Amino acid sequence: MTEHAPALARAATDARAFALANCIRALAIDGVEAAKSGHPGAPMGMAEAATMLWTRHMKFDAARPDWPDRDRFVLSNGHGSMLLYALLHLTGFEDMPIEELKNFRQWGARTAGHPEYGHAAGVDITTGPLGQGLAGAVGMCMAEAHLAARFGREVVDHRTWVFCGDGCLMEGISQEAISLAGHLKLDRLCVLYDDNGISIDGATDKAFTEDTTGRFEAAGWQVIACDGHDVAALDDAITRAKAETARPTLIRMRTVIGLGSPNRAGTAASHGAPLGAEERALVRQALDWANEDFSVPAELLAEWRAAGARGATEREAWEARLAALPAERRAEFERRIAGEMPDGFDAAVARARESLFAEPQKVATRKASQIALETLAEACPEMIGGSADLTGSNLTRVKAVDSDFQADSPEGRYVSWGVREFGMAAAMNGMSVHGGVIPYGGTFLVFSDYARNAIRLSALMGVGTIHVMTHDSIGLGEDGPTHQPVEHLISLRAIPGLTVFRPADAVEALECWELAIRSRRAPSLLALSRQAVPQLRGAGEENLSARGAYVIRQFGESRDVTLIATGTEVALAVEAAEALHAKGHGVAVVSMPSWELFDAQVPEYRAEVLGTAPRIAVEAASKLGWTRYVASEEDVIGMDGFGASAPAEVLYEKFGITGDAIVARAAALIGAAS
Amino acid sequence: MTEHAPALARAATDARAFALANCIRALAIDGVEAAKSGHPGAPMGMAEAATMLWTRHMKFDAARPDWPDRDRFVLSNGHGSMLLYALLHLTGFEDMPIEELKNFRQWGARTAGHPEYGHAAGVDITTGPLGQGLAGAVGMCMAEAHLAARFGREVVDHRTWVFCGDGCLMEGISQEAISLAGHLKLDRLCVLYDDNGISIDGATDKAFTEDTTGRFEAAGWQVIACDGHDVAALDDAITRAKAETARPTLIRMRTVIGLGSPNRAGTAASHGAPLGAEERALVRQALDWANEDFSVPAELLAEWRAAGARGATEREAWEARLAALPAERRAEFERRIAGEMPDGFDAAVARARESLFAEPQKVATRKASQIALETLAEACPEMIGGSADLTGSNLTRVKAVDSDFQADSPEGRYVSWGVREFGMAAAMNGMSVHGGVIPYGGTFLVFSDYARNAIRLSALMGVGTIHVMTHDSIGLGEDGPTHQPVEHLISLRAIPGLTVFRPADAVEALECWELAIRSRRAPSLLALSRQAVPQLRGAGEENLSARGAYVIRQFGESRDVTLIATGTEVALAVEAAEALHAKGHGVAVVSMPSWELFDAQVPEYRAEVLGTAPRIAVEAASKLGWTRYVASEEDVIGMDGFGASAPAEVLYEKFGITGDAIVARAAALIGAAS
Repeated sequence: MTEHAPALARAATDARAFALANCIRALAIDGVEAAKSGHPGAPMGMAEAATMLWTRHMKFDAARPDWPDRDRFVLSNGHGSMLLYALLHLTGFEDMPIEELKNFRQWGARTAGHPEYGHAAGVDITTGPLGQGLAGAVGMCMAEAHLAARFGREVVDHRTWVFCGDGCLMEGISQEAISLAGHLKLDRLCVLYDDNGISIDGATDKAFTEDTTGRFEAAGWQVIACDGHDVAALDDAITRAKAETARPTLIRMRTVIGLGSPNRAGTAASHGAPLGAEERALVRQALDWANEDFSVPAELLAEWRAAGARGATEREAWEARLAALPAERRAEFERRIAGEMPDGFDAAVARARESLFAEPQKVATRKASQIALETLAEACPEMIGGSADLTGSNLTRVKAVDSDFQADSPEGRYVSWGVREFGMAAAMNGMSVHGGVIPYGGTFLVFSDYARNAIRLSALMGVGTIHVMTHDSIGLGEDGPTHQPVEHLISLRAIPGLTVFRPADAVEALECWELAIRSRRAPSLLALSRQAVPQLRGAGEENLSARGAYVIRQFGESRDVTLIATGTEVALAVEAAEALHAKGHGVAVVSMPSWELFDAQVPEYRAEVLGTAPRIAVEAASKLGWTRYVASEEDVIGMDGFGASAPAEVLYEKFGITGDAIVARAAALIGAAS
Repeated sequence: MTEHAPALARAATDARAFALANCIRALAIDGVEAAKSGHPGAPMGMAEAATMLWTRHMKFDAARPDWPDRDRFVLSNGHGSMLLYALLHLTGFEDMPIEELKNFRQWGARTAGHPEYGHAAGVDITTGPLGQGLAGAVGMCMAEAHLAARFGREVVDHRTWVFCGDGCLMEGISQEAISLAGHLKLDRLCVLYDDNGISIDGATDKAFTEDTTGRFEAAGWQVIACDGHDVAALDDAITRAKAETARPTLIRMRTVIGLGSPNRAGTAASHGAPLGAEERALVRQALDWANEDFSVPAELLAEWRAAGARGATEREAWEARLAALPAERRAEFERRIAGEMPDGFDAAVARARESLFAEPQKVATRKASQIALETLAEACPEMIGGSADLTGSNLTRVKAVDSDFQADSPEGRYVSWGVREFGMAAAMNGMSVHGGVIPYGGTFLVFSDYARNAIRLSALMGVGTIHVMTHDSIGLGEDGPTHQPVEHLISLRAIPGLTVFRPADAVEALECWELAIRSRRAPSLLALSRQAVPQLRGAGEENLSARGAYVIRQFGESRDVTLIATGTEVALAVEAAEALHAKGHGVAVVSMPSWELFDAQVPEYRAEVLGTAPRIAVEAASKLGWTRYVASEEDVIGMDGFGASAPAEVLYEKFGITGDAIVARAAALIGAAS
């Protein structure tokens, strides 16, 4: 590893760049000191790289952070957030006045501990959970490549720059991302790797001694090694990355974490805690930095602001090129970037509904999903589909997207993600924040586990990524408990801001898809069955799934019991209700495709749907959580433990998820109530 | 890729091996046909490799599947389960008569769709969720290396063999596993990679074109490429793997998926569906296999049985060596393998309790966990600690384990897992099923997301892996919502068979650790705080946490309200109870460190603890699920959405998790009740 003093000397060789970089260092240190928490080490170690990238290479215009053709910047080592906040402030982003830096990590500030998408313009994606920034960047590049192919290089011609640390590369998701990026030859992707040999527990050689260069080269990347404090070398490396046209680039920068801190540089002590007043004084001495806290000399700030304005000309030229596009192409591009629905969407939905009412479908809800997609994906050209190597099972491929997205066909609308659920979900998030596309991707519901933190991030960011999860219960059958979700529905419903859909039939599947596609500021997850269900819904124009739950059947005038069910169990509940009705009971069956949407309804509607009679919930999944709607878990016909390997119908029988069980419980409740 | 006919011809070169391999093919095909579902492709493609490994190299004794020094076999591509079942049957494992194969994938059979640990001796680990078998094998090798260092090569001297496919290597966890295995120079690990170029969606080159050899070499592995149907080449490759003493080995076998099936070999069609009667007939023709279904010619079965008995001599020699060990070492080895607690454990627990009562600790529960570990890890030499690069945060390192487990120090008891939560959890499962060690590993609770499916597998397998998860709420503070768990507690409680502990103070932390260590047939997860809490518990011998919940404070004679809290919120509930009591109300405070243990108590105890007064739950986490114990989510003082970045005390205030909020809700409930 590079040592402190010589590294500092090399950084100082270019006095101007060094002074600019020290603005970042000083602000990062001050922010962390003021907050009494945070991570100074990464900003100090990557200050030269950030300076060279942001002042000389990256295409952006601080005055127009929403410029669609700007380069994207991803701080995958998100704990170094002060690096990004310092850059945004220095280059003049309106959202990032010095007060925000002073308020780092405080309630209501835009400067959260880790960069949060939506808090401040210039934060292109939420990062912090390691490795996901890198995977998100892959998605951004995929969106860029796709839009460039669709709308032309005259309006889509940008790059994605990633800063990452050792932690990101230790996480398995990084391999999913780099393998896919290499496969897709994403030449617009450049990762600057902060190879500082230090992670939280000390020297990385305690756990991480692989040949990173060899690993990336094996994945088809260009790898450039350089000294991360030598600005000329950095300039050259970045220039070479930009010149590369067939591969993504890794710039492996040998750096010193916490560079500038005489006692902490090169050690884990500089990683995740304030330096303290004493050490800060020593840093200032070492950097020849004699300014007040949070203060940058006017001439340096002016240079930084000039860098922030540097892209204005290019942005204006881009606007002219956009204006010169053929009207239709331009309008379509602007619509997509604005995230507005296409004109024909409503009509397409109506058409698809009509078709289901004209010809009811008794199919698995995954098949119903495919039927819905046939129409909707055609009406919605920004949709990009895919699957984590389960296309034939997820049924995510339809005619409109029946074109492979590959290195030589970026206009394609279907991504073969490989068996990479986490990478897929995180990259889809990158596509979502990039804009211009609506990504959806499939796997088995049980493997939502693998992708879980990316699903969470889609909810935290508030982006409309669509997660398609089939084989949603023990109905999966023979593959057995490793493949049968049990706890997944409740676990996913627990993620704030995620809408979980479990449609009951072909009509609900269409409705849920419509809602998911329209939901551009919240992610959706569709839980879909392997096994077939009858179509329960008759004609009607309203999207009843939009209410989250509704009475799908009423037997008799009164209501002695209410059966609440989701997905494949709605048909079972209807059967049981018929049997109960035959015995003289009044029964309402409530289909509840989405808890979240139901809970968002007005209290009167909720009260009306739930009724005052005893309630039973039916779902072939964990009973946990259903006491939100029923009195006790004894009133839930569901699962108490893991599933098993056997044909689906045997499993339903053995685990007691049967019409008889519903009838028995209902009889007990009605008996008790009367 | 190798083509079918020439590959078949090469396989047939060694007539005897070919015939043996065809026993596997025939049984796999028959099993899948009978079940009408399953995966014939992998068993057919890996039949030569399995034959060579099991008949000539792997050390095992079918009559003694629990022989501790046997080689371990991991079918990481678990969908090829019929391969393993066929091998177990052919070599004569008592648990695997032909009836089990005929009953493949049926209710009650030992032959689940994917290999399930505990269903049949010889299934060394549950596999199916891709990549985790490989990571589990890394843990097995770590356990082996550790035990060998502790007890000597005369009794611990075995290898771990892994079969894996493309899917395993696409999953990110595989990189975590291979990177760590290379770093640790696990020379007893050999992975036979079924490089058949096919995954479910077709040719792997749609998504997976990396240079696998380069990738493994970059991680420090020996890579041997060979033809997977050339038994001489396989024999040679396996021999070389055994001779290697400084690196793990990858045998990259070029194979034809579904070899033997004239129309499906080399295509995805052979992967995951029965071949059908017609194609099966063609296979039999191609393989010159003229036997009845599920029938193997006597002379071939005899050969296989001989292979299964081949290890008996070696096993007997091992028994003699074990008997010759010094008595103390032998007794300790046998105790560990049996999974029995050490003699001094009870006394150590008692000592640690006394110490806490003598000198109460006001500390974070992560610190309390460390205090408990100081004593318990010393009393329990089979415990191996570690952290995913958060040692100083998780406080998982204590004196007894203060020795690095590294390539040159396998006797060490502390693993630097790197930032690899999923790999860590899966490898710990491998250590657990291997036996002889009790692994525990730390990360932040929010990153349980990354490890989630491995946590699930520890529960499904019923093994006592201990997951240590600190920074368990918004109490984490400034790092913000990406790092603050909200939905995690309920999501983890939803996993069947996992015991989630959230101790309230130093005494409960000790009690929960005691329970976790004693729990050898179910995994435990400890959720621990960043912030300090007072010690609430006074002297007393009973481990009250073992009951899951108990009345920790009673104010007044009567009970007007019951406050149920967990972890750091118990102290808050106690404060609120004091305030309520000052207003003249009788209040019981229930500490509930574990839902699972509480729900397992007798109804009388549960009723007594919960009482009949109105109840309020207090937990700085999602309210979802608490209606198991309280009437409505309005009675939960908890979180409705994600957290935020700010100091912890500010967050508790802003999110309304305060004594005042508890008092206000209690007053409302008491008012309504009176």
